[in-house]
Amino acid sequence: METRVSCQDKEVVISSSHPTVLIGERINPTGKAKLTAALQAGDLQIVREMAVTQMADGADILDVNVGALGVDEVSFLPKAVSAVMEEVKVPLCIDSDNPKALEAGLKVYKGKAIINSVNGQEYRLQSVLPLAKDFGAALVCLAMDDEGIPATADRRLAVVAKIVERATAMGIPQEDLIVDCLALAVSADSKAGVVTLEAIRRVRDEFGVNQTLGASNISFGLPERDVINWAFLAMAISTGVTCPVVHVSKVRAAVLATDVLLGKDDYSMRYIRAYRQRQASTK
Amino acid sequence: METRVSCQDKEVVISSSHPTVLIGERINPTGKAKLTAALQAGDLQIVREMAVTQMADGADILDVNVGALGVDEVSFLPKAVSAVMEEVKVPLCIDSDNPKALEAGLKVYKGKAIINSVNGQEYRLQSVLPLAKDFGAALVCLAMDDEGIPATADRRLAVVAKIVERATAMGIPQEDLIVDCLALAVSADSKAGVVTLEAIRRVRDEFGVNQTLGASNISFGLPERDVINWAFLAMAISTGVTCPVVHVSKVRAAVLATDVLLGKDDYSMRYIRAYRQRQASTK
Repeated sequence: METRVSCQDKEVVISSSHPTVLIGERINPTGKAKLTAALQAGDLQIVREMAVTQMADGADILDVNVGALGVDEVSFLPKAVSAVMEEVKVPLCIDSDNPKALEAGLKVYKGKAIINSVNGQEYRLQSVLPLAKDFGAALVCLAMDDEGIPATADRRLAVVAKIVERATAMGIPQEDLIVDCLALAVSADSKAGVVTLEAIRRVRDEFGVNQTLGASNISFGLPERDVINWAFLAMAISTGVTCPVVHVSKVRAAVLATDVLLGKDDYSMRYIRAYRQRQASTK
Repeated sequence: METRVSCQDKEVVISSSHPTVLIGERINPTGKAKLTAALQAGDLQIVREMAVTQMADGADILDVNVGALGVDEVSFLPKAVSAVMEEVKVPLCIDSDNPKALEAGLKVYKGKAIINSVNGQEYRLQSVLPLAKDFGAALVCLAMDDEGIPATADRRLAVVAKIVERATAMGIPQEDLIVDCLALAVSADSKAGVVTLEAIRRVRDEFGVNQTLGASNISFGLPERDVINWAFLAMAISTGVTCPVVHVSKVRAAVLATDVLLGKDDYSMRYIRAYRQRQASTK
């Protein structure tokens, strides 16, 4: 199944037979004091710089989230989206908890965006599914609902099934749904990795839709987080994830290596080119 | 299924529900000029040092191979096995192309060893299976035969089925068989990783036996080989490999991370302990 997203000049195809698509996670104030302060002051310069840096690092799509205390997302998310569109030519993932802000961001966006996100909560289904339908956008579907993130793969699948059913009933094509099975910190629960991987495998086998994953949470609380993140991404991609949300500069080599091993990089050309670029940039 | 191997003082259990067992690959002269020269001169000092170093790095089992031009393995492999037994308390994997050398090594070994290896060639089946039976040893079974390493997972499975059948007919318990699906260089063939992973998955699902893998070959000819090896090990272990043959110091962190993610390391204790040891040793 292919999900096609675009900006004015470029289309990106997400599918299990294409190289893994990297969604850059950095434009998001959670845990970033400097970015939070800038957004609160209405300053988008850091956002512009993060867009340029992530593209140089090899991002295929950029997530844009400006949700911070004191920021009016409805007026400010479209400004951030416009600023990023000015800086870089890349499809965007418009990210907010506020459906009105998502709508405002979609209104200024040129191309086919990804909406981040809907989940199994009735309120979200009712407010976000119509946006995906009206704007013809792709849609990240989180495997959680009013009761939080289910502890078992079974129950995450049930939430996914519910979202897929509601989206389909509204006429949203299944290829525009991008499921996120969600990763919790394995330091808090030894089964966190296994449950997520099992859910990913079953979503692939039962729905065949594209899948994203915020892969960095898994390593929270552990030393040398990158090592955990790399191993998790390799396993998650080999199990069904096609467009993870990541810190691109930290994980790109590992993801390209995974693509080589999964036969998604003929003659290892992308892997070798990225290696040479890193070599050149550190000279 | 559990494979139990031992030395005089210690037993190691290999199974998919236990942490991944690391077989240290270093005592093998292939591609090592200094070790080759030492073995040709009858000098086992480097072998002794490699044994100690690999144990310090976290090896669970050590492979011992002294096959080099001009080395009489039948007389020298038992000397190497004895030397390693004097230095370290760890089960050994006795490794030779020469069945007479394997027999000589097994005769001096104290405990239950692993024999490395048999494959689908009639000559190897007839000469090596009786050794596993007579010495009660575990046995590495390579998925290759007279025609070399099959290009497809189907044909590798057929070779494995043949070896399992012959071993079973001779009364060797299936839990003593350790299959190696074999990894070729992905730089030479883009499908090399996919074929091996598919074979590993099917051996797990159809035979349920333990599996080893010489995981380093996969990255031959590519830059930053460790990144490829880490990703491949993560995928191979999540697919069914339980005791890879590896350069322990280079891959242990990635393997321990994989075990954390697969729920094989309660409270991430092994991962955190290994991290602290590395920190202490670099101070």
